[in-house]
Amino acid sequence: MRVVVAPDSFKGGLSAVAACAAIGAGVRRAVPAAEVVAVPMADGGEGTLDCFLGARGGTPVEAAATDPLGRPVTARYALSGDGTSAVVELAAASGLTLVEDVPPDPLGASSAGTGELIADAVRRGAREVLVCVGGSAGTDGGAGLLRALGLRFLDASGADLPPGGAALARLDRVDDSEVPAEVRATRFRVACDVTNPLVGPSGAAAVFGPQKGATPSQVRELDAALTRFADVLAARSGVRVHDLPGAGAAGGTCGGLVAALGAEPAPGAALVAEAVGLPAALAGADLVITGEGRVDGQSAGGKVVSAVAALARERGVPAVALAGAVAGPLAGLHDLGLTAAFSLADGPRTLDELKAEAAPLLAALADQVTRCFLGPGQETRSEAGPGP
Amino acid sequence: MRVVVAPDSFKGGLSAVAACAAIGAGVRRAVPAAEVVAVPMADGGEGTLDCFLGARGGTPVEAAATDPLGRPVTARYALSGDGTSAVVELAAASGLTLVEDVPPDPLGASSAGTGELIADAVRRGAREVLVCVGGSAGTDGGAGLLRALGLRFLDASGADLPPGGAALARLDRVDDSEVPAEVRATRFRVACDVTNPLVGPSGAAAVFGPQKGATPSQVRELDAALTRFADVLAARSGVRVHDLPGAGAAGGTCGGLVAALGAEPAPGAALVAEAVGLPAALAGADLVITGEGRVDGQSAGGKVVSAVAALARERGVPAVALAGAVAGPLAGLHDLGLTAAFSLADGPRTLDELKAEAAPLLAALADQVTRCFLGPGQETRSEAGPGP
Repeated sequence: MRVVVAPDSFKGGLSAVAACAAIGAGVRRAVPAAEVVAVPMADGGEGTLDCFLGARGGTPVEAAATDPLGRPVTARYALSGDGTSAVVELAAASGLTLVEDVPPDPLGASSAGTGELIADAVRRGAREVLVCVGGSAGTDGGAGLLRALGLRFLDASGADLPPGGAALARLDRVDDSEVPAEVRATRFRVACDVTNPLVGPSGAAAVFGPQKGATPSQVRELDAALTRFADVLAARSGVRVHDLPGAGAAGGTCGGLVAALGAEPAPGAALVAEAVGLPAALAGADLVITGEGRVDGQSAGGKVVSAVAALARERGVPAVALAGAVAGPLAGLHDLGLTAAFSLADGPRTLDELKAEAAPLLAALADQVTRCFLGPGQETRSEAGPGP
Repeated sequence: MRVVVAPDSFKGGLSAVAACAAIGAGVRRAVPAAEVVAVPMADGGEGTLDCFLGARGGTPVEAAATDPLGRPVTARYALSGDGTSAVVELAAASGLTLVEDVPPDPLGASSAGTGELIADAVRRGAREVLVCVGGSAGTDGGAGLLRALGLRFLDASGADLPPGGAALARLDRVDDSEVPAEVRATRFRVACDVTNPLVGPSGAAAVFGPQKGATPSQVRELDAALTRFADVLAARSGVRVHDLPGAGAAGGTCGGLVAALGAEPAPGAALVAEAVGLPAALAGADLVITGEGRVDGQSAGGKVVSAVAALARERGVPAVALAGAVAGPLAGLHDLGLTAAFSLADGPRTLDELKAEAAPLLAALADQVTRCFLGPGQETRSEAGPGP
């Protein structure tokens, strides 16, 4: 029996690695001879770097970059052991939390630092870059990021625009003649869990601008600037991202990456699953056990459980989710391919108890779940010999 | 897909019938076309009569009888719709709770009333009688019960002994010449969940006598009397019940029934399972879902979950238990044949919440469990069409 174990972390309880260990122990309790393949997962947010590094080897890279206001910062990204792939979290160099010490500058804040990290990864050989967006300080459509990769954003006089989203209102043309060949040869993907378009009433400025300190008039200014930005990019590349779902993520960074570099946006968990090799691990599996702190109808959108379920269904592998709490209706998840979901609560329990005892409870539950997928002829431990 | 639903009641929450309805609803939520066979279960204790009547038709019979002290009492037993089988609970006419209004009489209390109910059932045509023991007021080895069925217990002078266990010390011989042919033709089974022998330090008098008001010297007196009783029966029938596990149940009533009438003692849940037709229902089933308020290592002994699991294993049917609380280790239950056990808790929950929401939680859990036993090609509701 081959069982793939691919949980997200259990927030406040277990890391994805610890959850894998607990679930794997439970699987082996049921079937000592089971082949357990641990694939710790993440959804593009917290834990993604560790998850990627664990699966692909390598170490975290610390690189010099600039924060959203142009100040020096040292930030961390992940490079695979073979150096071909990198995961960069936008929040690491371009996050709102980096500039909480000063008054907000929604018009001027830049995504440049993230581009500097990406450039560092590309210089080291990475040709696949997964950009995890979210938590950005700026609303510059990723212009700062793109500039760090060699693009130039010019006004009508041919001068480079200053950093920040507001300046994009004066964008006249884009010059990509200085973009290095290795950047052009790189495949970019954007882990993006919102569906907001780049502009308009649900766009980056309108929805996320206020969180970054933008006043209503600044929101209008930024929305107009992003519209100009998208117009110019579309005229050049033919790719219109004005209304693209998800383009509004991270101050429009997702939209800029799509329009300027052909980046592919997708839900974070699905991209992480691919980056950590889950599709290959599922080949020939009899069962995949996933999980996260809470499974509910919301899990159908871009979370780890739904990504694992979808991959499992494609391969005809039953997928079971274990969670601290399971809240129905789960029809959306079943439709995606999830076979079933079970709570690790074993009776009346407080939330604190569930967190404190998450590991043994997960093991016990995984044991029981595994037994449900044994054929009648397969041996379990209690039948096969003495237990511990 | 054919799913048998055979839970015990959930103490303080749901009757077995209500649990069947909830679980069945969950099964159909997963697989609308599933054939659901509801077999409410009991373990020989509370709920057994209703469970038997539900499965076998018929109505409860109220009959005149005598209580442990010989006072008139009206007691209830169950007769199957076809009149061929009966379930008699010893506590109904011979229970300790019937004599709580007077000082205890451990030496004189009798099981006669239970025999009167059995005699009534046999007169009405019952040829299979399941006697559910437990909660008896007396320690008479079932002598009172047997006397009501026509046996005579005589002293050396040929006089009938008076009621109660103590008198058995003077037993000289048994006269069964007046036992009606229909009683002889009746198959008796005793639902017996203790393993105490009839006599000795773990016997009926030593272990249960004090609960019934026996002083230490009365315990010794009753133990000697039961020994004499067993000696005489053994000399006559060749059946020694002195050390038979379970013979000590209900003041030795189990032992008396075995030695005098060839009754077969067995765990209550197993006997109830047979009486309600569970073995036949399991034929060709793809899954059986059982359950009770709590599943733990203790469940391995004589409870509903273990009885269902054992029958399921014999037929190659996977068996899953749903419970308010699941407490490991469950190795004993897995060894018996239980595939898996799951708690109906869906996250942090209080005991009161679990009881109050037992029905919807059971339905949700049964839905998830059923999906685990679907083959890859089988349709579930969420795949097959619109949900509710």
